[in-house]
Formats: sequence, structure tokens, C-alpha cells
Amino acid sequence: MKNDLLLKALRGEQVPRPPVWMMRQAGRYLPDFMRLREKHSFFERVQTPELATEITVMPVDQVGVDAAIIFSDILVVPQVMGFNVEMQEGKGPVITNNIRNPQDTLHFLNTDVASDLSYVYEALRLTKGHLNNRVPLIGFAGAPWTILCYVVEGQGSKTFSNAKAFCFQHPEKAHQLLSAITEVTIEYLSNQINAGADVIQLFDSWGGLLSPVDYQQFSFPYLQRILSALKDRTQLIVFPKGCWHNLGQWAEIGASGLGVDWSMAPSWAREQAGNQITIQGNFDPSRLFSPIEEIRKATWDMIDAFGTRRYVANLGHGILPNVPVENAKAFVDAVKEYEQTSIAES
Amino acid sequence: MKNDLLLKALRGEQVPRPPVWMMRQAGRYLPDFMRLREKHSFFERVQTPELATEITVMPVDQVGVDAAIIFSDILVVPQVMGFNVEMQEGKGPVITNNIRNPQDTLHFLNTDVASDLSYVYEALRLTKGHLNNRVPLIGFAGAPWTILCYVVEGQGSKTFSNAKAFCFQHPEKAHQLLSAITEVTIEYLSNQINAGADVIQLFDSWGGLLSPVDYQQFSFPYLQRILSALKDRTQLIVFPKGCWHNLGQWAEIGASGLGVDWSMAPSWAREQAGNQITIQGNFDPSRLFSPIEEIRKATWDMIDAFGTRRYVANLGHGILPNVPVENAKAFVDAVKEYEQTSIAES
Repeated sequence: MKNDLLLKALRGEQVPRPPVWMMRQAGRYLPDFMRLREKHSFFERVQTPELATEITVMPVDQVGVDAAIIFSDILVVPQVMGFNVEMQEGKGPVITNNIRNPQDTLHFLNTDVASDLSYVYEALRLTKGHLNNRVPLIGFAGAPWTILCYVVEGQGSKTFSNAKAFCFQHPEKAHQLLSAITEVTIEYLSNQINAGADVIQLFDSWGGLLSPVDYQQFSFPYLQRILSALKDRTQLIVFPKGCWHNLGQWAEIGASGLGVDWSMAPSWAREQAGNQITIQGNFDPSRLFSPIEEIRKATWDMIDAFGTRRYVANLGHGILPNVPVENAKAFVDAVKEYEQTSIAES
Repeated sequence: MKNDLLLKALRGEQVPRPPVWMMRQAGRYLPDFMRLREKHSFFERVQTPELATEITVMPVDQVGVDAAIIFSDILVVPQVMGFNVEMQEGKGPVITNNIRNPQDTLHFLNTDVASDLSYVYEALRLTKGHLNNRVPLIGFAGAPWTILCYVVEGQGSKTFSNAKAFCFQHPEKAHQLLSAITEVTIEYLSNQINAGADVIQLFDSWGGLLSPVDYQQFSFPYLQRILSALKDRTQLIVFPKGCWHNLGQWAEIGASGLGVDWSMAPSWAREQAGNQITIQGNFDPSRLFSPIEEIRKATWDMIDAFGTRRYVANLGHGILPNVPVENAKAFVDAVKEYEQTSIAES
């Protein structure tokens, strides 16, 4: 691997500067992506390995990030489990056969389906070829809890209160469903590793909607199962968005990296997570709308606070549409210039 | 005051059991409210003192809460400042002349408008009469930051990224606007106190979208100004939703009460906020969909953890539509039964 900063940072090795990538970096703020989007529907892009590869490599070439993350979607897992996932303009994902009654869960407990996601594995293989070992390739999946949110609620939501009500009213059914999602996800990620993924990230985008007690019941054990199953095969990053209250748990159960959002001060996150795990984050995605000089300054302040060891520079959530490419690039460049700057300043 | 539990709890006095009320208690889950809603539009209900009074008193009579909160909306402040606020079915509030350019702020800096909100003051006076000192009456306003979110974004949003981008690109204009909102809010709340509000709550519903550093720049100082201006006249509760990172600040600047959401363990919140402030919260609103026995148990556990001193039982955010009235009542009743239960158990 020519640029192995991410792998080194996740292993806790000394690096000259932190690696940098951006969640959702292969997407909506890049003009070339927008052009592809006009010609090909969402699932066409996801399911056509050549398109997914082209999109995945874009930010490596155009923005200069230190890692690629495969262009895909966390909802391919429920899709392959039998849920009809549609991507509706302006509304986001809609699941037309979402779980409305406890007995509905029965239809979706088949866990022998991960091999059907061959288009993802093919995209990973193709991308590995294209990248030619320039940077590591990240595979990913959603946390079972986050997937449950969608398949019960049937669409995005501020509160996912239907999904939560389902869990609170029918905990046994919820756990059955979470177990099934977990099994499929483990197989899916295992196949991603076989296809060449160098690192795996788990997105628990809606973990923060659960109270600390409920998180321990409905999300944590399933992520724990995934981490346990795969930790000997690859480096795993977990991103439990909004879960500032449990940062200390992840290192113990096999995560190499922990994504944190921008609701917390870097020094606080470090203190909570400890030194046995690499922290990833946590630049406020909206702060990429700041003037470029401020982006540079804030990026350097962030690295100062996290430190260069066991740290991966990233945003605190996905990059927003409408962010100017030069601003995204300013963020990435600021991380790359960090070493020289701090030396120049000292 | 016949039932002065809330006032006592906010002053830190000993109470036989904690007071209980629910954010958004006068609203969408009550059948009588839904009937009024069919006949009268949102702003008709808000602007007609007799209707606002009827709605405000409903949960006192029907659910048995220990305090009334005036039926109104935080967006009456931007409305009186010149913003066109519409309530659109299924979409929520829309501001048609939202701030799109920095020069737009100029039109909205007139701070001499709070007296025009006489319908709110009249509703407070009428409600005081109807309540006849049964329970305290809470007045409220939005935090200037949260109001800015709406008047710049123009509608609800998961990220309010346009509002944040505006602040980051035009901080001077943002501060002008925040100052103007602050001035109007102080005058508005002062008038509410004159009209009979016994307690004031400040809702910073979108405070959690800001990083800790940005919160200190764009939200905290304005809430501080409001608290300083009014703390000698009334008991003030601040609810900075999502701002778990600054719980320690509020007691020092004059808040008597601090609302907390359900992302934090009660014991953690108490430790952070200290013993000089009354904590209010933090039952997960979605947990009201649990079976009634679990609601009772979880409510008692919550009180056990917060303690009965300097504590107000409440939800961690507004009550959700579709919550069965008997479930809301089970929550309220569980708080009222707490004393006997804990004695019976010990």
C-alpha cells in the first residue's frame, strides 16, 4: 500500500500526520458525481460495479483523500432481506413493505442472502484494481439498530418513533429482527473483506435516538456480535452517531476506530474513549461552509486537540450537498499541511 | 397557589414528591384538542385567547399535571418581527420571507414590537383566571439561536445547514439578528410575567446542532442575556436540547431549572449540573408507547436516579402525537404515586 496512513493510524502506529477522508465523500458535492446522477438512478449507480467504482475513486483523484470508501448504501442489506427499498427524490429512502405488525417480522428472517449482494463484492474488486494500492479501500454496513429504524418506520424520520414504539411494545420480535440483520451483516462484511475491503466501518446513524439504557438493549449487543465476528480479520471502525455517552465501550470489544460527531470537544472524546482506540472525526459538516482560511484554522485546532497519534481526521457526519469542492479540498489539504504548519509555528 | 410543587422544586425546597408536567402537554395527543384543531387553524388557536386558554387548561383537567404551560408557539416572536410564518400541514412551519442574503437581516431589526403580542398576554390573564391558582402557569419563548434557525432556513430541517452556513459566513449579521431577537424576547417574556406567568421556560430546541465552541458563540450569550434580565423577576427554566456538553453553565447565570433530554443517564446529568439547579426531564417520549406497567416502572426508576429534591419530572422532549392518553396519564400518575411506592418498597 503506497499510502497506508489510515491502516497505521488504526493500528495505533506513529504517523507523520493523521490520515483524512470524509464520510459521504463519494457523492453529492462533486460535479462529476452530479452528472452521473442525471443519467443513472440511485440503485443503478449502486448496483452497477463500473459506476460504483468510478464514483468511489472520484474523491481520491479529485480531492486527495487518504482512503476510498465503496459507493453503496446501508439499505442494500434490508433490500436483499426482502424489503422493497425505493429512493424517492426529495424524500429519501422509502420502504414500501415496512414492518407494521409484529407478525410481519416473520417474512424477513431469512439470513442466507448475503451472497446475493455480489454487485457490491464486484465493485470492491474492480475498485481495488483501479486504486492499484494507492490508498486503502473501506467497506461498510449499517448497524442493525439503524437498519431496524428504516425497515419499521418505512422512511426517514426525526424521531423514528414508530420504530422505537415497535421495539418497546414487541421487544422479542425486535430482537429476532435485529439478530437476523446481524447475521446477514456479518456475512455481508465478511464477503466484503474477501473482495478486498481493507477496513470496515459500521454506521449507527440513529444510535443517538436511544437512551443509554435502551442503547445497551437494542443496539450495542448487535454491534458487539459483528465486531467479535470480524475483528481478527480486519480493522473495524464504529460510528455510533449521537452516542457520546458510551465512548468508553468500543475499544474493549474489538473496534480499532471510533467515529465521533461534532457535539463533543476533541479533548473530551479522547478522555472518554481512552488511548486504546483510534478516534475519527469530528469536523462539523456545516463548518465546511466557512471561509477557507477559517476551515484551515479550525482543522488545525482540531488536530492539535486530538493529537496525531491514534487519530483519523474526518467530518462528524456526512459531507453536505452544496459544499463547494474547494472547501472540501481545503479541509483535506489542511490536514496534509498540518505537519509543516505545526513545525513552522513552533 | 394550591399546588405549588413546581415553584418549590425550582426554589430547591423539600417536596413530598416531584412535580410533573409534559412538554407539549396541551396538544396533539388529546382528543378534545384534535376536535378543536379540526375547527380552528393553528394560528387561530394561538391568537384567540379563549381557545388558547381552553387548550392550556385541558391537560390540567384531563391528565392531572402539576403545571399548565400556555398554548402558543415559539415562532410568534419572529412573526411579530416581520417574518411571514405559515403552518403547513405535514410540513410544519414555513417562513416565506426567510433570510437568504446578509442584507435581508436589515428588515428585521426593529425590536419595539413585543407589545403587539397582546393576544398571548390576554391568554395568560384568562388562563390565570380559569386556573384559579390550582397550579402554576408557565410562559415560554424560543432561544434566539433556535429562532434564527427557522428564520434563516425558512422551514424545519434535520441539519439547519443553511442557517449554520449563514452564521459561519456572516457572523456579524447573525449576531445583529440574534441581538434583535434577544431584545424582543426579553420584552415579550417580561410582558408574560406581568400578565401572570409564574415560571418561564426557554426552549433551545436546536442548540444541539452546534459544536460546543459554536454554542458558546451563537447561543449561550443570548440566553445569558435573557436570564440576567429576568432572573430577579421569576423562576426560569432553560431547555438546551442536545447540549449535554454544557450542563454545568446554567446555574451560574440565573436559571432555576435545566431541562435535559433522554440521551443522558439521570445520575450523569445530576453530577454535571450540580446541586444548585433543579433538573427537569428526561423520560424518552417514545417510551410512552411502552406497556403501562413498564411506563410506571421506568418513571419510578427515573425519580430514584434524579432524587426528589431539585427535580421536576417531565419528558426529554415534547410528547409525541398518537401517544394514548392513558399512557400519558400513567406517566403522570406514576410520579404522583412515587412517594407511597418508595415508602411501600422500603
